[in-house]
Amino acid sequence: MTLESIRYRAGSLQILNQLLLPHQTSYEEIRSVQDAYEAIKSMKVRGAPAIAIVGCLSLAVELRAGTGGDDPVTFIRESLCHLTSARPTAVNMGRAARELMEFAENESMEKNSEQLRESVISWIEDMLERDVNDNKKIGNYGAQHILSGVPRDSVTILTHCNTGSLATAGYGTALGVVRSLHTLGRLKRVYCTETRPYNQGSRLTAYEAVAEGIPATLITDSMAALTMREMSITAVVVGADRVVANGDTANKVGTYQLAIAAKHHGIPFYVAAPSTSCDLSLESGRDIIIEVRPPEELTSINGIPIAAPGIEVWNPAFDVTPHQLITGGIITELGVFLPSELQAALTGRLTAL
Amino acid sequence: MTLESIRYRAGSLQILNQLLLPHQTSYEEIRSVQDAYEAIKSMKVRGAPAIAIVGCLSLAVELRAGTGGDDPVTFIRESLCHLTSARPTAVNMGRAARELMEFAENESMEKNSEQLRESVISWIEDMLERDVNDNKKIGNYGAQHILSGVPRDSVTILTHCNTGSLATAGYGTALGVVRSLHTLGRLKRVYCTETRPYNQGSRLTAYEAVAEGIPATLITDSMAALTMREMSITAVVVGADRVVANGDTANKVGTYQLAIAAKHHGIPFYVAAPSTSCDLSLESGRDIIIEVRPPEELTSINGIPIAAPGIEVWNPAFDVTPHQLITGGIITELGVFLPSELQAALTGRLTAL
Repeated sequence: MTLESIRYRAGSLQILNQLLLPHQTSYEEIRSVQDAYEAIKSMKVRGAPAIAIVGCLSLAVELRAGTGGDDPVTFIRESLCHLTSARPTAVNMGRAARELMEFAENESMEKNSEQLRESVISWIEDMLERDVNDNKKIGNYGAQHILSGVPRDSVTILTHCNTGSLATAGYGTALGVVRSLHTLGRLKRVYCTETRPYNQGSRLTAYEAVAEGIPATLITDSMAALTMREMSITAVVVGADRVVANGDTANKVGTYQLAIAAKHHGIPFYVAAPSTSCDLSLESGRDIIIEVRPPEELTSINGIPIAAPGIEVWNPAFDVTPHQLITGGIITELGVFLPSELQAALTGRLTAL
Repeated sequence: MTLESIRYRAGSLQILNQLLLPHQTSYEEIRSVQDAYEAIKSMKVRGAPAIAIVGCLSLAVELRAGTGGDDPVTFIRESLCHLTSARPTAVNMGRAARELMEFAENESMEKNSEQLRESVISWIEDMLERDVNDNKKIGNYGAQHILSGVPRDSVTILTHCNTGSLATAGYGTALGVVRSLHTLGRLKRVYCTETRPYNQGSRLTAYEAVAEGIPATLITDSMAALTMREMSITAVVVGADRVVANGDTANKVGTYQLAIAAKHHGIPFYVAAPSTSCDLSLESGRDIIIEVRPPEELTSINGIPIAAPGIEVWNPAFDVTPHQLITGGIITELGVFLPSELQAALTGRLTAL
């Protein structure tokens, strides 16, 4: 079975509260746009694709219940604006909001309120299905590409952070590739880094692996290079917060260091991301601003202090991996591309960000 | 002021209980060899040089109090045997035990019990002084070597784990180099890695830096490569558990990954260690066995679970950095040597291990 982070049946939405993981598996009902806003802001749901899906589905739930009355376009616009403000750096929610708004405005030219409501709900429900399908394509393309290098053997993968069902509508991006390899019976083992300071690896990726019986081993971030040398790693596969035109990739801090270590060991390094995480409006990774987060993420765990009082801290949330280090390729739902091929492959397929 | 981890006045020994750091600064009296054995085993004192010093000093305390009576040689032999068994992988205690035993046996040929007792006590007290002096020489040689590359500027250092006053008789090895640079007024800042899973960086190195006013910033292990790229790191300096004949170096896990990242950025990578940590009996790092420690070090902090229940864990305590990556040199109390120069420089100066 695949772990469900988002449960949606027409008119009813539940999310797995990730703040309580891995110790408690608890689903919460999302009845309104405001419920979704609060769940996103408090990080009960996280991961750029998952944020966009939950935000839009909460709007579908309200539209089904009749909110917005005779002027659904105004209600949709205000809701999307509110949802986008919950975590403004997440690219996917902003993109989905623009696309959905454009769709709703076009529909409103020809249709009455009731028809508009129905078509917007369909658009959103299609989005959920499309996201899961895109992830399955990413998993399949990635698995085939990795296996093409090792015709008969099973493979050992190293991954970082959480890019699975808990970060997307389901299945996952980098962890989707791992799932596909496991389904094909070709995964020997996946090594997941702890991913300090927020421990997405030990809390979330480990949780998904245990829940689905995927053979997995947890290591600290500092053990990755040693693992590459000692454990015959076939490929390193990570997700992306944003891939820019030249292939430079912003992702969870630590990704850059993994890419350097992979290069040193001659191990192919892959980025797995839907085309909606690609931002062709930026030319290179130098244009990406590094978000710096609070020191407390390093100096305490669950509110308990773990570092010497008074020490200064630098806590950048992500880093940029230059395209030269992405030696395996960028795995999208459209195929696997070298960084140099990405722009041509996506041009015309993506709406502007 | 320099932080004191070991307080010794003739006949009286106290150690700083490192299990209570960084939240509580508490000294404990060591009255006997058995007290020292228990402190070492429970890791109230840690760091290979510090273990050897505390072990031998506890013997001096007992000898001063008259333990061993008319047959001090037997008492010394049994005590050293017991002390060495507390943490058998620590090289320095074993070496000190062999040297001291040889000395005591030679002395016993010519001297009576009382004279023997006095000369063994002197030997041990000299050892304490020698260790601190050796560390100061390491600090001085290392600082001069690093500064020779940047004639006027102040420097930024990145270090790993804890190699300071808390790991040695005082002053420290890699952190001794940092102390020397700070004393010379040439240290801009030191970045210390958290050093998962045991957090020696955030607990101990950060504690020493705050206590002595050394400008220091804590980062996670995963941020080291980004820090090298963004923060103009002048040099990476780490300690060593064991340096073998060709210069390959076993040290706290994560060191290998730092060395790869330093090489990628063209930053000199130094190992700082007393000659007593060098083991010329092993030809290459391939001969060093990697100690694997319990999973709980990753899956809980202070007894509180932090990872998904049921996840498998790999927890190697250290890794081996090949000599090719030690581009700055190996800093000893005898000078700074390239890995290829080490064996010739030390031959004849070290007793066999």
